[in-house]
Amino acid sequence: MKAEIITIGDEILSGQTLNTNAAFIGEILFKHHIDVTGAVVVGDKENSILEAFRKAFANNDLVIVTGGLGPTHDDITLECIVKFFNTELVKSEEVLKDIKNIFGKRNRIVTPANEAQALVPKNADVIRNYFGTAPGTWIEHEDKIFISMPGVPFEMKEMMTGYIIPRLTDEKLESQNYKITKSLLTTGIPESYIFERLGNIHELLKDSVMAFLPSQFGVRLRITVDGENDDDVKNKLSFIEQQIRAKVGQYIYGTNSDTLEGVVGKLLSERDLKIAVAESCTGGLISSRLTNIPGSSNYFERGIIAYSNGAKVEHLKIDENMIDQYGAVSMEVARLMAEGVKAVSGTDIGLAVTGILGPGGATFNKPVGIVYVGYCDNKICTAREFRFGDDRILNKDRTSQAALDMLRRNLLGIKYED
Amino acid sequence: MKAEIITIGDEILSGQTLNTNAAFIGEILFKHHIDVTGAVVVGDKENSILEAFRKAFANNDLVIVTGGLGPTHDDITLECIVKFFNTELVKSEEVLKDIKNIFGKRNRIVTPANEAQALVPKNADVIRNYFGTAPGTWIEHEDKIFISMPGVPFEMKEMMTGYIIPRLTDEKLESQNYKITKSLLTTGIPESYIFERLGNIHELLKDSVMAFLPSQFGVRLRITVDGENDDDVKNKLSFIEQQIRAKVGQYIYGTNSDTLEGVVGKLLSERDLKIAVAESCTGGLISSRLTNIPGSSNYFERGIIAYSNGAKVEHLKIDENMIDQYGAVSMEVARLMAEGVKAVSGTDIGLAVTGILGPGGATFNKPVGIVYVGYCDNKICTAREFRFGDDRILNKDRTSQAALDMLRRNLLGIKYED
Repeated sequence: MKAEIITIGDEILSGQTLNTNAAFIGEILFKHHIDVTGAVVVGDKENSILEAFRKAFANNDLVIVTGGLGPTHDDITLECIVKFFNTELVKSEEVLKDIKNIFGKRNRIVTPANEAQALVPKNADVIRNYFGTAPGTWIEHEDKIFISMPGVPFEMKEMMTGYIIPRLTDEKLESQNYKITKSLLTTGIPESYIFERLGNIHELLKDSVMAFLPSQFGVRLRITVDGENDDDVKNKLSFIEQQIRAKVGQYIYGTNSDTLEGVVGKLLSERDLKIAVAESCTGGLISSRLTNIPGSSNYFERGIIAYSNGAKVEHLKIDENMIDQYGAVSMEVARLMAEGVKAVSGTDIGLAVTGILGPGGATFNKPVGIVYVGYCDNKICTAREFRFGDDRILNKDRTSQAALDMLRRNLLGIKYED
Repeated sequence: MKAEIITIGDEILSGQTLNTNAAFIGEILFKHHIDVTGAVVVGDKENSILEAFRKAFANNDLVIVTGGLGPTHDDITLECIVKFFNTELVKSEEVLKDIKNIFGKRNRIVTPANEAQALVPKNADVIRNYFGTAPGTWIEHEDKIFISMPGVPFEMKEMMTGYIIPRLTDEKLESQNYKITKSLLTTGIPESYIFERLGNIHELLKDSVMAFLPSQFGVRLRITVDGENDDDVKNKLSFIEQQIRAKVGQYIYGTNSDTLEGVVGKLLSERDLKIAVAESCTGGLISSRLTNIPGSSNYFERGIIAYSNGAKVEHLKIDENMIDQYGAVSMEVARLMAEGVKAVSGTDIGLAVTGILGPGGATFNKPVGIVYVGYCDNKICTAREFRFGDDRILNKDRTSQAALDMLRRNLLGIKYED
């Protein structure tokens, strides 16, 4: 089964909105062995939209369109679908009920613009929208499938996972092609170092494929394996993964859609450990990432964002003389912050960061990008220096990642190499 | 001048990486009046890449390619460029020096894989990479321009803003087409309500265009105006903007690339006011957003992430009986948290949130999505209830936005409508 993804919207073409929808749809189709042959973006113009429909529908078995279904005048996807399939709009009572229900829950009045969203193409099955007002539509024509969804990401995602994928996999999916992919997520080691350590990569991979995907959070190693049957691909993948883990295993914190905050959260939860965090330069990002995980209130006790020295002294009980002596950005203060937050909160673990993320704040001895991470548990109390780049926001991400990785290494007893 | 953007990488097509590069390039070209006719994504296959090169180069004056220039075996863009232009690779001493310099700064050794990145096509001008090892290339051929850059976003961005845009606008850009775009950023009002309030939209816009772009942070109203000359477009835009502001002005917190944290940061800075933040459900996100702004240490004093009741009592000096009486998630506790964090930190303003973001934690009276925001300054101390949806991460974003907007409204003296 071949598929093409069409994203509609001037705001995507002109870069004002990121095309997260095409990424999500591409990923979920790929996982279900549907070949994505291309992804195109077109503006809010009838001609461009109809041309994209024609080209995609001619060359594929499945076309998935997002965007342009809102309640306002710039949303013209529905008109284009009606023209493309030479059909008409009819009112769906089911959709109207859903719309009224959503507005009722939020104590808001249904406007005529909202009511108009209950109109759907006559030849379409309705895909219900549980989070918003614009329904999706599923049209079958000439033994092909044409799906349209609103562009609001969480509405689209629910339709994909709750309706479209189940219906596609029931009806159409009998893949003859055995193919799996797995990502190993590393942090704390550059792309080129991994490459060197792996040695002869063609010998390692044989006819499989691996991509190195770097970001400020680390390098994702994405392995894709083709084979004759399910066992064959699983064995090949397992062999490659073992080889990689033997060489850079300590840097691998998870796989596929894992996050480092999810991985450490699971470890804390399993071991019934509580953590408190003291942050200076990251301004709350580490705590925010830890609390992104449902159930984190079971292990995350509190966070102190001690931006000012006063806050470090009052909430973390750090001796002001130590700050004067070593500087607020220092190995010693990072360790004292970790120790302090652990003591005041009575947790098993204290994690702390202090650093200079830029653009300002550098001194002769402390350049922009210098960061200290402190870690204390009931056995050890330690700190470590990291050096990052010049960009404030990227440095915040990198620092939060380094701190969470220091937590991971300590929980698992994995020493740093240097 | 017509341009097409090509993004290379299986990881984009399969949705494992977001195509932020095409968005950034589209935006900056659009700003400089270069028409982006399309944006395509192709996988890491020589045939697909060459086919995309051919099609784009035939139909446009400018082709911009990102991705596939890394030091590892899956990066084949350079080979494709050499084939496409029938040229060869030569070693660039300038690039080799840059690579050695970057590795030296981080105390890392240059590997052979890194050295190979000093090879560039013979017919290309080098675009230096100040943040990484793969250079960009600028090729002129048949009076057209072909640019290739690495896929790492911050490396690509520096090349676009530091080299490509200046060179493009010097050499080629004499736009005859007067066109401007401006976005008005709203929060706290749904898309359909704005639409209703604006009345007859076609009368308002005449031959201009406006898009409604909703997200969890609010609705972006993007206005695009065409005209005969610079004054004409400015006058038309100004007229439309005034009309919109007259109707929904209180919900507009900024324009274009403004962020709410940047807007309130500027207000705090100008008025020399200091703020402290107490967060429960947002887990540090509000503080993290405030401290994303360079110079925020001038107004952000501290943050207390009082996840546990103990932390609320100890750091914010809240009477435990009040928590027992009203519940940790209540209007009263939100106000006490704001009052408490202001008092302990000695700042001018205290901002606080408490809520239930899901998936767990709901009670009979307090459903998932209920949030209270507290605000105190030297004159007033108040709190307000908000009701959001079911998704934890979206709710964190929405709550942080509602809290920062409550801060904005209080700083500017803008009352809520209800």
